[in-house]
Formats: sequence, structure tokens, C-alpha cells
Amino acid sequence: MLNHYTRGAGHPRLVNILAKVYSKQLQHEIHPMTNVLTSIGAFDALYTTFQALVNPGDEVIIMEPYYEPYKEICRLAGAKVVYVPLAPKEKDSNSDGWVYDFEQLQTAFSLNTKAIIVNNPMNPLGKVFTKDELQPIADLCVKYNVLCVADEVYEYFIYGGRKHYRMATFPGMFERTLTIGSAGKTFNATGWKVGWAIGPENLISPLQEFHHNTIRTNPTPLQEAVAVGFETEFERLDRADCYFTTMSQEMEEKRDQLAGYLREAGLRPIIPSGGCFVIADISSLERGDDTKSPGHSTRMESIGNGYSKWTQQ
Amino acid sequence: MLNHYTRGAGHPRLVNILAKVYSKQLQHEIHPMTNVLTSIGAFDALYTTFQALVNPGDEVIIMEPYYEPYKEICRLAGAKVVYVPLAPKEKDSNSDGWVYDFEQLQTAFSLNTKAIIVNNPMNPLGKVFTKDELQPIADLCVKYNVLCVADEVYEYFIYGGRKHYRMATFPGMFERTLTIGSAGKTFNATGWKVGWAIGPENLISPLQEFHHNTIRTNPTPLQEAVAVGFETEFERLDRADCYFTTMSQEMEEKRDQLAGYLREAGLRPIIPSGGCFVIADISSLERGDDTKSPGHSTRMESIGNGYSKWTQQ
Repeated sequence: MLNHYTRGAGHPRLVNILAKVYSKQLQHEIHPMTNVLTSIGAFDALYTTFQALVNPGDEVIIMEPYYEPYKEICRLAGAKVVYVPLAPKEKDSNSDGWVYDFEQLQTAFSLNTKAIIVNNPMNPLGKVFTKDELQPIADLCVKYNVLCVADEVYEYFIYGGRKHYRMATFPGMFERTLTIGSAGKTFNATGWKVGWAIGPENLISPLQEFHHNTIRTNPTPLQEAVAVGFETEFERLDRADCYFTTMSQEMEEKRDQLAGYLREAGLRPIIPSGGCFVIADISSLERGDDTKSPGHSTRMESIGNGYSKWTQQ
Repeated sequence: MLNHYTRGAGHPRLVNILAKVYSKQLQHEIHPMTNVLTSIGAFDALYTTFQALVNPGDEVIIMEPYYEPYKEICRLAGAKVVYVPLAPKEKDSNSDGWVYDFEQLQTAFSLNTKAIIVNNPMNPLGKVFTKDELQPIADLCVKYNVLCVADEVYEYFIYGGRKHYRMATFPGMFERTLTIGSAGKTFNATGWKVGWAIGPENLISPLQEFHHNTIRTNPTPLQEAVAVGFETEFERLDRADCYFTTMSQEMEEKRDQLAGYLREAGLRPIIPSGGCFVIADISSLERGDDTKSPGHSTRMESIGNGYSKWTQQ
């Protein structure tokens, strides 16, 4: 049976264990059939969300720096993007030091706002939002009746003992939040392309209907495999021997290694508090020798070449 | 590597063997990188085709009876559907006897026609179009510069020694045809959800771009598995020991068995020349005894109940 079609909105074994995991994580009882849609990775969940719920002309708030495809997914839905930048409090701070300005955030919300994407941990900055930073966002969502697309695909990549707060757990937020997750990130198997959206029935139902007309069903064997993975980890969630815990610890070590290499190369890494990426400030780099070689006329090109030579050492 | 992202427009090993198979089947050299998009089953290939190439207000011709989701896929693209019915020449004919009326077909084409879906073998009728039936469709496509969406997912389910003619092989048709295929059908593994579109670069390129913004990449391990399947069968294509040949023979036996059962149950099956379905004429059925029981007020309901009782014997 695992080689044949399964239930369209999600393979039963997978939605059952996702409901158990998220009932715990979101502190809200999740029904496997009505509160879950499984998808072709988190990417398809995001696309489906915007196609099913956002109409042409609607405004969508995105915080910068952002995962680049958000812009295209909004464009395909005909939405107008309103940006709210995060900026570093001081030059050498890690990703925690990148914050939004409350006045700017407040101004971005209006009666035309349909949704906000809250990507936490944030790709590519690696910022993990504190409870105090999320609360004002939640308050504005409630005040303006705004849909919160909580892209939490890096939820288990949290470093330095920080805590991950889920948007759907804030008061008044479950009923207006779609939590997006990814087995590719969670189980370090991006090529499986198994993702999901979790939320209240009135929001999940249009997603299920739209998905029925674009993909119809997701691959069965990969959903079964992810279900087995979650069943295994569910019993030891938050414990030291949970895969999510050990994976996060390994990634934190790699983060520190990579940051060291970037410093060696003369770049200034912004140390991420979560997620899978390290971005670096290149403004301190001086023009390299290879600018003299023909065909490298701009400063960016010379930096690119210098860095690329260094990586080949 | 098989658990991680692969190339977005198609896993290299799969597009390479698909290019070999289709270079032979379409009698046209297929380039793996520019003439192929792999997708989440044929369903996603169809959805992507219409989103990428059909604009609101465009007319799309569909022959009846048709695979029901075509209508919804057209609606999502904003297209207007123009139907061309197939009708039986005589009451007891098999699916070969269902034909279109050339005048009706010709009238359906106009300067507003953007595309025609040619589903061959045809779902659910099981009709396999003859060369003489396809040629006028091809001629009209060329005359009106119309895109042909050749849904040939049941291409290897051909019965009674009939031959399957592919739309892209008719003169002037390769450059205006997208051939849709499905590993789910071809390898009897619907749950793998691996499909593809094959066509000229100017038609495939917008599909690849659209797909990049909705799905990004298809699952790697399932594409690898399908590639291995095609590599195995490619050398023995059209031979008696080819899986496609033996599967088709097995299905033909099952078709005849099922037709016998349907006749036993008082239905009149329309014997399909291809594909995976048998439809049956229920008009000969008389009102059953169970119409007297409460709650079964219509003739259709009583037939449904009678048939369902018979299947439970």
C-alpha cells in the first residue's frame, strides 16, 4: 500500500503523529484530519497558503532580511509587500542584536494588511525572536485581524540555550496562525520534500481544497518515513537523546567553526542564534590584489574572487 | 546525496533517461536539461502547464467524457472551456466506437483557442485514438497555432494489439505539444507521485520557472528510483519481456474479467481499448426491489444500492 495513493490532505500515519507533536508544541489540541495539511516541503505549504488565502491587492508584511522566495510567492498571489527592516543595534552584535523598530512595525499594519510572515528562526539572519519581541507582533495581528504565517521550519535549530516561542501559542493567535514546518529541515533530509501547515480548521480547509486541485496527494512512502521519524522522537522530545537536541548541538559546533573560518578570511560573521545559515559583513574587506587581473573591474568581483580563492586553499 | 535537494527542474539521472526514452518515442531529439520538467505526478505537470501558459479568458478545448480535474485546472488558470463530445456510433460498441464529429471539432477551434487537451488513452472511456482520428486534431492545432497538451499517462496500457500514436510525432506538432507522463501509471506506483512534461524549450522554460516558485524541487529518492526503472526497461522497450508489455497484458486480462463481472451484474460495459478504467452503461438496469425501503427515493439511488450489494456478495 505504501507505493499507492494515500489520503490527499495527508497520509494518516503522518497527520496522526503531527497532531500529537503539535498538540504539545502549540499547547492546543490539534485534530489530524481538520487541522493539518501535508505538502511538498514547506515551500508548497507557503505557496498553497498564499494562493488559498491571500487575494490580489492584499498587503503582506515581511521582515527584512528575508528568505528571498517570499517575495515571489506574494507576487504570484497578487499581494503587495510591505517591508519592516531589522537593523543591528551595534556593529559587532550577533543576530540577537538585530531588532525591528516598533514604530515602523506599527505603521506597517493597516486595514489593508492580510498577513504577516514571521520566520523564526529567521532565514538567513539566524535570529531567534524573544518572547518580548513576538508579543507586540501578536498584539498587532489580533488588533488588525491579520493572518500570521509562522514559518518555523528551523524550530529545532536553536543555539546557546535559547528558547523558541511559537506564534500560535500567544493569546488570541492560534485562530489566526498557520504554522509551517518541514521534515527536510527537522530530519536533515531536504530531498524528501515533506512539509506541512498546521492551523484552525477555517484556515486549513481552503488550503486542503486548493492543494487538492494542484498536487492532489503527496508521495506516500516519504510521508510514512517521516511519520516513523516523529513517532521515534515524540517520546523523547526535549530530552538529551532526542535527535532534534543532538542535531542542534552538532550544528552549533559547526556554526562556531564556520564563524572562525569566516573571521580568518577577513569577513565579520553575524553569529546566528538559530537556523542553518551564517551571514557575514564584508564591508571591512579591502580591495584585493586580483583587481589588477583583466576582467575584474568592480570591488565586489575582487572580493568574490579573493573569497573563492581562499575557499579553495 | 539521495536524501538531499536535487536539481529543481528534474533529478539529473531521471531527466537523462527520460530524454533517451522520449527521443525514441517522439522521434525527436530531447535535451534532458531544456526539454524536460519533472513534477509531483502528472497532476502537477498539468497544473503547472496551465498556470504557466494559459491566460485568463483563453479558450481550452476538452473532449468529453473527460478526466474531471481538467475542468478545475482550467478554472484556476481563468480559461474558458469549450467541450467537444465523443459519442458512440452504435449502442454496443467498445471504446473505439466513440468518436468526435469533425464539424463540431472544427467549430470548437477559433482565434481565441489557446490549447486543446488530448488525453490518449482517454480517461475514463479507455479510448485509444487512431492515427486517422488524431491527424485532423493536429491539422487544426497547426492551422490555429494551438498548444496541444498531450496527456499520455496511460501510454503503455494499450490492448488488443492496437498502436499508440503520440501527438508530438505528427508533422508540425512537436513545437506546439507538451507531452505529459506519469511514473505512477507507467510503473504501477501511484504513491510515488513522479510525473513530467516533455516539449520544446520555449514551452518547457516557462513551466520550469513557474515550478521553481511553487515546488522548487521534487523529491530526490523517488526520482532516482524511477530513473533506475526506466534505465532497466529502456533496453527492452517494445520487447515481450519489457515490464510495460507484461503489465499491459495483465491489465487486458483483468479488463476482460471485470467486463464479465459487470455483465453478470446486469450492466453493459464499454470495453476500453486502453487505460485503467472500465465504464459501464447502466441504462438497461430496472428499478430494484430496494426502492421500497425508506430513504431510497430515486432510481439512481436504487441502482447504486443494488450494485453495491452485488459487489459485497
